Amino acid sequence: MQIPNQETIIALSTAPGVGAIAVIRLSGTESIRIVNGVFHGKNLNVQKSHTAHFGTIREDDSEDGKQGRIIDEVLVTLFIAPRSFTKENVVEISCHGSPFIVQQIIKLFLKKGVRLAKPGEFTQRAFLNGKFDLAQAEAVADLINADTEAAHRAALNQMRGGFSDQIKQLRQELIHFASMIELELDFGEEDVEFADRQDLKDLVAKLLSVITLLANSFDLGNVIKNGVPTVIAGKPNAGKSTLLNALLNEEKAIVSDIAGTTRDFIEDEINLEGVVFRFIDTAGLRETEDKVEAIGVSRTREKMKQASLIIYLFDMKNDSLVEIHRDINMLENLGVPFIKVGNKVDEAQPELYEPLKKDNDVLFISAINKENLEALKNKLVETVNLDNFKTGDTVVTNIRHYDNLIQTQNALIAVMQGLDSDITGDFLAMDIRQALHYLGEITGEITTDDLLANIFSKFCIGK
Amino acid sequence: MQIPNQETIIALSTAPGVGAIAVIRLSGTESIRIVNGVFHGKNLNVQKSHTAHFGTIREDDSEDGKQGRIIDEVLVTLFIAPRSFTKENVVEISCHGSPFIVQQIIKLFLKKGVRLAKPGEFTQRAFLNGKFDLAQAEAVADLINADTEAAHRAALNQMRGGFSDQIKQLRQELIHFASMIELELDFGEEDVEFADRQDLKDLVAKLLSVITLLANSFDLGNVIKNGVPTVIAGKPNAGKSTLLNALLNEEKAIVSDIAGTTRDFIEDEINLEGVVFRFIDTAGLRETEDKVEAIGVSRTREKMKQASLIIYLFDMKNDSLVEIHRDINMLENLGVPFIKVGNKVDEAQPELYEPLKKDNDVLFISAINKENLEALKNKLVETVNLDNFKTGDTVVTNIRHYDNLIQTQNALIAVMQGLDSDITGDFLAMDIRQALHYLGEITGEITTDDLLANIFSKFCIGK
Repeated sequence: MQIPNQETIIALSTAPGVGAIAVIRLSGTESIRIVNGVFHGKNLNVQKSHTAHFGTIREDDSEDGKQGRIIDEVLVTLFIAPRSFTKENVVEISCHGSPFIVQQIIKLFLKKGVRLAKPGEFTQRAFLNGKFDLAQAEAVADLINADTEAAHRAALNQMRGGFSDQIKQLRQELIHFASMIELELDFGEEDVEFADRQDLKDLVAKLLSVITLLANSFDLGNVIKNGVPTVIAGKPNAGKSTLLNALLNEEKAIVSDIAGTTRDFIEDEINLEGVVFRFIDTAGLRETEDKVEAIGVSRTREKMKQASLIIYLFDMKNDSLVEIHRDINMLENLGVPFIKVGNKVDEAQPELYEPLKKDNDVLFISAINKENLEALKNKLVETVNLDNFKTGDTVVTNIRHYDNLIQTQNALIAVMQGLDSDITGDFLAMDIRQALHYLGEITGEITTDDLLANIFSKFCIGK
Repeated sequence: MQIPNQETIIALSTAPGVGAIAVIRLSGTESIRIVNGVFHGKNLNVQKSHTAHFGTIREDDSEDGKQGRIIDEVLVTLFIAPRSFTKENVVEISCHGSPFIVQQIIKLFLKKGVRLAKPGEFTQRAFLNGKFDLAQAEAVADLINADTEAAHRAALNQMRGGFSDQIKQLRQELIHFASMIELELDFGEEDVEFADRQDLKDLVAKLLSVITLLANSFDLGNVIKNGVPTVIAGKPNAGKSTLLNALLNEEKAIVSDIAGTTRDFIEDEINLEGVVFRFIDTAGLRETEDKVEAIGVSRTREKMKQASLIIYLFDMKNDSLVEIHRDINMLENLGVPFIKVGNKVDEAQPELYEPLKKDNDVLFISAINKENLEALKNKLVETVNLDNFKTGDTVVTNIRHYDNLIQTQNALIAVMQGLDSDITGDFLAMDIRQALHYLGEITGEITTDDLLANIFSKFCIGK
C-alpha cells in the first residue's frame, strides 16, 4: 500500500451544468485551513467534523486594504480525517449552481496552491487510505453509471463489500492451504506430509467450485451491466420492423416525470424489469420494407452469432411449415438461445396454426395490433433468468474481475492436477502463489501503479 | 404576506445528469421526521442543526419482516427551522450522482406523502417566510444563470440586498412625505399646511432624480444581462464574414480547463471583459461570399435599427471616399452607436488612407491577417462603458423592476405637477399612493399571488 499524496485536490463533484446548487469538494491535510483563508463567516479551523457553516467566499483583499470581491454565499461542510470519504480532511463547498461561480471558486483555490483532482482521485485516495478495497472502489463508478435496478443492485452489493468478502475468504482458505504446503517444503528432506492429500484435494475442489460459480456469474453480470444483444430474425415481410417499432415505441412512452432523472431515450433499447435488451443491426429493419435477408443467408447468420438472444419471427399468414422447421433447425445448430414467435396470428393459416400450437414454446402475436406483446416481453425476461439474482447475491459484472477469476481457476486446476500426479510441494506452491496473486488483485491486496492508474482513470472527475 | 404552505416538498437541487454526487433537498416542518423514517444510521430527530450524518436509505421492510432494499449510502445534512434556506426544516441528502438513484430516492419520498417541488418553490418559501425580499429572490435566479463577471456581480449585489435597501429607503422617505400630506387631509377643514410646499418639492425632486438614475441604469443592466446586439455592416466584399469569423474563432479558442465549468460555446457571441456581444443576423455573413446587401438597402437598415451597436466595415482597397462618407452620414442619421472600421489596411489606397487617418475615430484593421483586432475589441468594450459600473453600484437588470421604476417616476412627476399647480392634498395623496405601490412591488412589500406565480415559475426546479 502506498502513502497517499497529501497535496490538496479540488473538483466539482456534482454534475456539470446549471442547477440550484453545485458542490465543490477538496481533500487533503490542508484543505480546511486553505478554505478558511478565503471563507468569511466563522473560523473553520476550530469547528467540529460533520458540521455545516454559512458564509461568503471572497477573493483576497487588495494590497491597499480594499475588501476582496465576494464570489458567492456558500455553505461549507467539514469532514475531519479520518471521518471522511477519503479519510483525509475533506471540505464540501455548496455554492449556487452556476458554472461561472464554480469556475471562479475553483480558480481561486488553484491560486492558493490546490490542484485539480484527476478522474477518480478522491476514490483512489479512499482506497489508498484503506477506506475500502479495490473491488469496492470500482463499484462506486458502476453505481453512478447504473441505470437499471439490476445494475444498481449489483453495484451496491459490490460497493458494500459483498463480493470482496467472498474473495477475501477464498483467499484466506488458500493461504491456509499454502502454509501447510510450504511447511512441508521446510521439512522437505524429512518427507513429512502435514496435510492429508485427500483433504487438500477436497479443499481445492471446493475452492474451484466457488471460483467457477463466480466466474460463470459474469454472463449474467455482463447482461446486467451491458444489456442483452438481441436480433430479430425472419423472412422479409414477416413483420420484423413492425415488431421492433411496437416494442421501442412503448419504451419511448415510458418517461420519468421527476425532473433531472429522465434518462435519455436510447434508440434500439428496451428495458424490461431492469434488463436492457439492445436490438443490434436494426438499421435495415427501420425502413418500411424489410430489407434484411432471410435467415439462411450467411450475412444474417454472422449477425445472429453476435447476438445473445434471437427472436425468430415467422409469418403465420404466408410462411410454410417446411420453411419454419428448416429455420428452427438452423437456429438450433447456431447455439444462440432463441424465441419462436409466430406473427400475424389473426390471419393465420389453419394448416400452420394447428401443428404449431402443439409446441408450447411458440408464441403467437400480432405485431401490428400489439397483440400478445406482453407474453413476448415475459419470455424475453425469462430467458435472461434474472430471478436467479437475488438481493445479496454476488454477480461479477467487471471484466477485470472475471479475467482474474479465470486466471485463478487455471492456477487451481494446475494445483489439482499436481495433487493428482503427486508432484513435489515446491511446484504446488508455485501454482498456489499464482492463484493467490490473481485473487489479491481483485480486491487490491496486491496492486501495481499501472493497475491503479488504469482503473481510476475511467472514473469521472470529482469522484 | 401569506402563511407558507407547510407541505413537505422535494427536488433534485444539483444539475441533472451523472456526477460523483447529487443533492436532493426537502423542505417542510415534517422533512426531518420523514427522512428519519427511511434513513438508517442515527436517529435524525435528535440531531443538531447544521450537522451531517452518514447512513443508508432503505425501502420499507416487507410485511413479513424482510429488510427493505438499500437504495444508497448517503450523507444527510440537517437544517432546523429557522436556520435554513427556506426558514423551514430542510434536509439535504447527498447521494451517489446517478439519475437512477436520484429517481429511486425521490420516488420513495413521494410514497411517503412528500410532493415534488414546483420551480422556484424553495426560494418562494424563503421569500414568504421573510428570509429575503422579492428583488433578492429574483437575484438568486439571475445569479445561477450569470455567465459573465458583470452579470454575476450585478446579481450578487442584488441578492445581498443592495438594490432592495435603496428602494426601501426611497419608499420610507415617500411614506414620511405621504404621512404629512395625509395629516393635512385630516385637518382639511382647517386649511393647515404641516409641510412647507418648497420642502415637499425638494424632496420629490430628490426622489425623482434617484428613481431616474436607477431607471436609466437599466440600459447598462440589460447589456450586462442580455448582451449587446451588434451588427457588422458594410458593402459586399468589405470582409464582414472574415472579421466575424476572426472574432468568433478566438472566442472558440478560449475554453475553460476546469471540468464542469465550460460554458457551451454559443455561435455568434463573444465575451469581452465580461460583456457579451451578440452578432445578429450573421447567417448571410457565414457563407464564403458576402450576400448581405450594402448598408443603404432598406432591409439592411431595418436590421441595423435592431442593433445596439454597429461595426461599420469598409474596404480600404476598393471603396471610394465618397461612398464611405455617404455611409457614415447615413449611419449618423440612424441614431445607433457605430464604430468606423477600415479593413484591408495592408492594401489601402493612399488617397483613402491619408484623409481617413485624420479621423481619430476610425480604426484600421486587416481582418484576414488578424491585425489590430485588439484595438477593435477595446473599442467595443469602450462603447458599452462598463467602467461606470463598480462593485456595489446598483444596476437594474430586471425588466419588471424597470417597469415599476418607470411607473413610480410617472406618479412622482404627477405629484410634482400637483405641487406646482397647488392641487388639493387628496389628489396629491392618490399619486403618492401609486408611487408607493409600484416601489413596494419591487421588493415584494406589496404582492399578489399572480405576481409571485409569474416570478417563481421562471426558476429552475430545486431552487
